[in-house]
Amino acid sequence: MAATDTTLTEPAPEGATDADLTAGMRALLDGSHAGVRRLVVDGLTPHASILEDAETMPYADFRERVRDLVVELSESGLTGLGFPEEYGGGGDIGASVAAFEALAHGDLSVLVKVGVQFGLFGGAILQLGTKRHYDAYLADTVAARTMGCFAMTEHRHGSNVAALETVASYDPATQQFVITTTREDAYKDYIGGAAKHAELAVVFAQLEVPGEDGPESHGVHAFVARIREGGEPVAGVRVGDDGPKMGLNGVDNGKLWFDGLRVPREALLNRFADVSPEGVYSSAIESKSRRFFTMLGTLVQGRVSVGGAAITASKVALAIAVTYAGRRRQFEATDPDTEERLLDYGLHQRRLLPLLARTYALHFAQEVLRDTLHAVFSGEVDDDDVRRTLESRAAGTKALATWHATRTVQECREACGGAGYLSANRFAALKADTDVFTTFEGDNHVLLQLVAKGLLTDYAGEFEEMNQLDMVRFVAGLAVDTVLERTAVHKLLERVRDLLPGGASDGDEAFGDRAASAGERIEIRDPDYHLALLSFREEHILGSVARRLKAGIDRGGDPGAVFSSVQDHVIAAARAHVERLVLEAFAAKVEATPEGPVRNALVLLRDLHALWVIESDRAWFMEHGRLSSARSKAITAHVNALCRETRPLAQELVDAFGIPRELLRAEDLIGQGH
Amino acid sequence: MAATDTTLTEPAPEGATDADLTAGMRALLDGSHAGVRRLVVDGLTPHASILEDAETMPYADFRERVRDLVVELSESGLTGLGFPEEYGGGGDIGASVAAFEALAHGDLSVLVKVGVQFGLFGGAILQLGTKRHYDAYLADTVAARTMGCFAMTEHRHGSNVAALETVASYDPATQQFVITTTREDAYKDYIGGAAKHAELAVVFAQLEVPGEDGPESHGVHAFVARIREGGEPVAGVRVGDDGPKMGLNGVDNGKLWFDGLRVPREALLNRFADVSPEGVYSSAIESKSRRFFTMLGTLVQGRVSVGGAAITASKVALAIAVTYAGRRRQFEATDPDTEERLLDYGLHQRRLLPLLARTYALHFAQEVLRDTLHAVFSGEVDDDDVRRTLESRAAGTKALATWHATRTVQECREACGGAGYLSANRFAALKADTDVFTTFEGDNHVLLQLVAKGLLTDYAGEFEEMNQLDMVRFVAGLAVDTVLERTAVHKLLERVRDLLPGGASDGDEAFGDRAASAGERIEIRDPDYHLALLSFREEHILGSVARRLKAGIDRGGDPGAVFSSVQDHVIAAARAHVERLVLEAFAAKVEATPEGPVRNALVLLRDLHALWVIESDRAWFMEHGRLSSARSKAITAHVNALCRETRPLAQELVDAFGIPRELLRAEDLIGQGH
Repeated sequence: MAATDTTLTEPAPEGATDADLTAGMRALLDGSHAGVRRLVVDGLTPHASILEDAETMPYADFRERVRDLVVELSESGLTGLGFPEEYGGGGDIGASVAAFEALAHGDLSVLVKVGVQFGLFGGAILQLGTKRHYDAYLADTVAARTMGCFAMTEHRHGSNVAALETVASYDPATQQFVITTTREDAYKDYIGGAAKHAELAVVFAQLEVPGEDGPESHGVHAFVARIREGGEPVAGVRVGDDGPKMGLNGVDNGKLWFDGLRVPREALLNRFADVSPEGVYSSAIESKSRRFFTMLGTLVQGRVSVGGAAITASKVALAIAVTYAGRRRQFEATDPDTEERLLDYGLHQRRLLPLLARTYALHFAQEVLRDTLHAVFSGEVDDDDVRRTLESRAAGTKALATWHATRTVQECREACGGAGYLSANRFAALKADTDVFTTFEGDNHVLLQLVAKGLLTDYAGEFEEMNQLDMVRFVAGLAVDTVLERTAVHKLLERVRDLLPGGASDGDEAFGDRAASAGERIEIRDPDYHLALLSFREEHILGSVARRLKAGIDRGGDPGAVFSSVQDHVIAAARAHVERLVLEAFAAKVEATPEGPVRNALVLLRDLHALWVIESDRAWFMEHGRLSSARSKAITAHVNALCRETRPLAQELVDAFGIPRELLRAEDLIGQGH
Repeated sequence: MAATDTTLTEPAPEGATDADLTAGMRALLDGSHAGVRRLVVDGLTPHASILEDAETMPYADFRERVRDLVVELSESGLTGLGFPEEYGGGGDIGASVAAFEALAHGDLSVLVKVGVQFGLFGGAILQLGTKRHYDAYLADTVAARTMGCFAMTEHRHGSNVAALETVASYDPATQQFVITTTREDAYKDYIGGAAKHAELAVVFAQLEVPGEDGPESHGVHAFVARIREGGEPVAGVRVGDDGPKMGLNGVDNGKLWFDGLRVPREALLNRFADVSPEGVYSSAIESKSRRFFTMLGTLVQGRVSVGGAAITASKVALAIAVTYAGRRRQFEATDPDTEERLLDYGLHQRRLLPLLARTYALHFAQEVLRDTLHAVFSGEVDDDDVRRTLESRAAGTKALATWHATRTVQECREACGGAGYLSANRFAALKADTDVFTTFEGDNHVLLQLVAKGLLTDYAGEFEEMNQLDMVRFVAGLAVDTVLERTAVHKLLERVRDLLPGGASDGDEAFGDRAASAGERIEIRDPDYHLALLSFREEHILGSVARRLKAGIDRGGDPGAVFSSVQDHVIAAARAHVERLVLEAFAAKVEATPEGPVRNALVLLRDLHALWVIESDRAWFMEHGRLSSARSKAITAHVNALCRETRPLAQELVDAFGIPRELLRAEDLIGQGH
C-alpha cells in the first residue's frame, strides 16, 4: 500500500495554490465592508474557545458565558453599528448587517444573542419608538448595560402576528397601559432572553382604549416594558424556560405571561400611532392593517441578517469539508504517484462544488439585499416600491439561504465521514445551531407565500393588507395577462425570449421537443440562456397560479380551498422568482469584475450554479417543452465538467472566505497548520 | 377570529379514527415478532425519563446512566436473543434484530450501546470465535457482566478495513500474540465503549507469524483482548476519548493504541484460521482476501440492525409530526366550521405523507432482509448465492433506510415549526443521534459501491475479493450483454416489458416521446407498470456503467480513472437496484394481505410510494424516453391525489406503529392525552 505510507491528510502539492486568486477573491467578497468584517473576525478569534465551551459546559453556565461575551463584544462598538452615533452607535445600517454576517463565523449562540439585543430589541426601539424612547434606552442598549428581549411570537400563533392575544388596555385614570395574557395558553414563547437575562421587553399586544361601547381595539402595537428587576421577574410577569433546545443553547429562550402588568402611557412605541392622556387613539396611517404592516416592515433587517448569517455558516462548513477533501487521500488510490485526493473523485466534487458555487451566488444576492436595505433605511431612497420589493427580497433570500445552509452543513458533515460527527470538528454545532434558521424570523414556507402574494398583486397599494383569501379574490378579479404584464419578469422575458427554444408563446408544449431541439444551437453556457430559462419558469408558474386561482373562484370555489389547492404552485412561483434574482445578482457581479483570474473563477462558479439549478429542475423544463432530453443530458454533462474545472481552484475559493484557523478548528480534518 | 377561539391543538373529530385499521395494520407491521417487539417497548417505557436525561445530564454522567440501563435491560433477556440458549441467549437471530429495531423507539445511545455490547462485540465472538471463546465470554457478555468493544476502524482507514495497520505478531517462545499500533496516527478510532466502559475488545489486526525471511503476514484477523482492568487501561493499551459528539453522547467512543500488548495464542478468534503453538498458520480458506471477506460477511447483522433502527426512528418522527399536523388548526382557517387542520393542506400532505408511505415500504423491505438473515444464520439455508445477495441487500437497505431517516426527521422537525426545535419535543435527539447512521457500519456511498460491484460481477465467485480496480478489469473483460443477462433484473424485465412504453430495446430514445405516449394507455396505478419502470431504470444504468467501464479500458484508460469517471453512475445503479427491491417487497406484502381495510390502505401507500419514487426521478425517465411530459405531469397529479386519499387514514397509519405516549413525549405538539 505505497499510496498510504504517509499521512493521509497533508497539504496540497507545492505550487498548486494561487495566493493572488485567494486575495483577489477575498477582496471582492468582503466588498465595501472589508474593514468591518475583518474587525469582527479578529474580535472573535481570541474567544474561539467558546466553540468548545458550547459542547462541554452545562447549558446554564453556557448561557452566562455567551452573555458575558456579548457584553464584551459590545465594547468594540461592532454590535451597535446600526444605531445613531449620538447613542454610541455607528450610524451605518449596511455595516451593521455585514458585521452580523461576520459574527456567524463564531459561535452561533453569540450571534443570536447579539441579534436579540441589538437587532430585535434595540431595532424595535429604534424603528418603532421615538426620541423619548431613544433617550431612555438606546445608549444603555448599545452598551449592553441593559439587556432586552422581543416578545412577539405567541404559543397559539406562530406566524400570524396579527391574531395575537396579549392585550394592552389603556387606563386613563392612571395613564397606564395594562398588559394581559388573555388566556393561559396564549403566552409569548421562544423569546430569546426571556428565560434569564432580559430586563426589558418590547411586547407586542392588541392596543385597546376605552370606547363608548366598551374597549376599542386598534390592532397590534409594541410597548416597552420592564419585565425583570435584580434578576427576578417583576410583579405582573410570569416567566417560563424553554429548556434545552436542539442548538443555540447559549440563548435563554423562554415564555412570558402578563397578568395586568402596568406600564406608563409613554411605554407605547409611538412612531406610527399614539394614545393621548385621555385615551384617544391617533395614527397618521388610517388603515389598521396597513399600519400593522408598516410597523412590521421596519423590522425587515432581522430577516436580512438571518439570511446573511446562514450564508456565512455555509462558508464555514464548506471551508472545512473542501479543505479536508483536498488533503485526504483516497484509500484505494488509483496510482500511488498521482496521490489522488478525495476531491479528485467526480462524486465528491458533485457533492461539494455546486454547493460552493451556490454559496457564492447567495453571497452576491445578499450583497444586493444589504445595499438596498441600507439605501432604504438610511433614507437614501424613499420609495414605497423599493421598500416593498426589499421586504419581498428579504423574505425570499432568507428562505433560500437558510435552506441552503441546512443542506450544505449536512452534506459537508457526511462528506467528512465519521470524523464529521465529532463535536471538535465543528459540524455538530453548525448543524444544530443553524437548523432553526429555516423557521425563525418567519417560517420559510410562510415567507415564500408572502413573496408570491407580492408578485401576484404586483405590490398593489393594498397588497400588504391582504390576507391569503383577500389575495385570492384580488387575483381572481384581474385578467391573468394583467397579472403577468405588470411583473418585472415579463419585461425581462420580452428581452431574452429569442434565447428560448419554443419561442414566445407558452401554449406550445406539444411542439416542445422540436422547439427545444432548435434551441440546442444556443451555447449552453450563455448566461442569458440561463436567465431566459429561469425567467420563463418564473412567469409560467406565476401565470399558472393566477389562472388556477381565477378558475377556482369562477367555478364558485371557496377562496380558502382554492388557495389550498394551488399552495404548492404558489411556493414554486416564489422560489422561481428568488432563484432568478439570485442568478441576476451573480451575473451582474461578474459583469462588474475586471478581466483576470478572479473574474474567470466567478464565470465558472456562475455557470456551475446556474446549470446546477436548471439541472435540479430539468424535469419541469422538459415537461414544459423548454429542454429536449438530449439537451437535458448535456446540461448534466456540463455540470460534471464544470465541477472538474472548478476543482483546481477549490482551495482558493474557500480560503477566500477568510476564516481564521482558530475559528475553523477541526484539527482532525484540516490539520493544525492550515 | 372564531376559528381560533379554542385550543389550536385538539383531538381529531369524533368518529374519524378507525380502531380496526390501526389494530390490523399494527398486527401486520409487528408480524411474526409481535411478542418480542411489545416486550421491548414495554421494557423501555418505564425508563422513558432517560430521554430527558439525554438532554440535561452532563455527558460523563449520561454515559453511566446509559450503561446502567443497558445492564438492566440485559436482565430481561431481550438484548441477548441472538445468542445460543446454553449461554443465556434466545437462540433466535430474527427475533434479536426485531428486538433491536424496537429498542430504537427509545433513547438511541441505549440502542447503540446495546449494539456495541451484544451486536459488535458479542457478535464477533459468536461469529468469528469457537467454543473456547464461547465458554470463556458468552455468558458474561449476554448478562452484561463483562462489557466489550469492537476495535476495527482506524483513523487512517475509514472504510478500508483490509489496509488497517495494527499488527498482531505471533511469538512462539511465549505462545502469545503481540499487538502493536505501528504508527502514532494509526490508532483505532470511534470505538464505542473504548473511552470508559469496555473491559474486553475484539481487536482487528494484521496477523503475522515468523517466516523464513522475516514475518509472514496473513491479513486481517480478530483477537479478543483485555484492555481494561478495574476501570483502568492495562499495560500496553493507551486510551483516548473522542469527547462530545453531535449525538449519541451516552456512548463512550474512544481511541485505542496498542504498544506491544501480549495476548495468549488462544485469543485469536479461530473459526476461520488458526496458528499452531509453533507458529504455523492454517486456514480452510486458502485465498487471503476471500478469508477476509468471509469473516466480514459473518458480521452483516450490524448493517441489518442499523437499517432497521433507522426505520424505527423515522416512525417516531412521523408519529409526532403527523399527529401534530392532524390536530393543529391553521391560523387562517378558510371556514370556521370546517376547522381545517394543518394536514388538510396539500403542501403539508406533500411534506409528510410520501415519507410515511416510504417508511412502510422500507419496513417491508427490512422484513424480507431480516427473514433472509435469520434463514442464513440459523442454518435454514446454506447457499453461497443467498449469502451474497443477503450482504448486498443489507448494504443497500441500510443506505436507503438511513438516508430516509435523516430526511424524514428533518422534514418532520421543520413541519412542527419552532416547537420542533425544543429538545422536549424529541426531534433534537432524533436528528443528532441518527445522523451518524449514514456513515457508520459502512459509509452509505461505499456500501452502494459494494452493491454495484455485486451486480456488475453477478456475485461471481471471485467478486468479494475484487477491489474496485479488479472489478473494473473484470467487467471490461465481459461482454456487456453477459453482464446484463446474468442479472435478475434482466429476467424480470423480460416479463414486464410489455408494460413499458418504448418496447424492448433501450436504444430507441429518439422515439421515446412517441413510444411513451403509446404507453399512456397503461393504467398509471398498475403496480406492474411501476415495477417495469424501476426495472428498466436499473438495467439501463447498469448496462451503461458496464459499457463505460469497458469502453474506458478499451481506450487504454487507467482503471482507477475509468472507475472515478463513472462513480456517480455506479452509485445510481446500486440505488436503482435497491429501490426496485423495496418496491417488490411492498408489492409482495400487499399480495399476501387479505382483502379489507388494511389491504386497501397498503395499496394506497404502495402506489403513493412508487409514484413518488418515479416522480422524484422523472427527469431521468423523460430523458430515456420512458415518460412523455404529459405522463410525467400526470404522475405528479396522482401523487397529489394519493396524498389526499391517504390523509384521512394518516392518524391510524402512525398509530399502527404502536409507540407508547411516554416514548413519544412532545406534549407541546401532540398533547398529554393522546
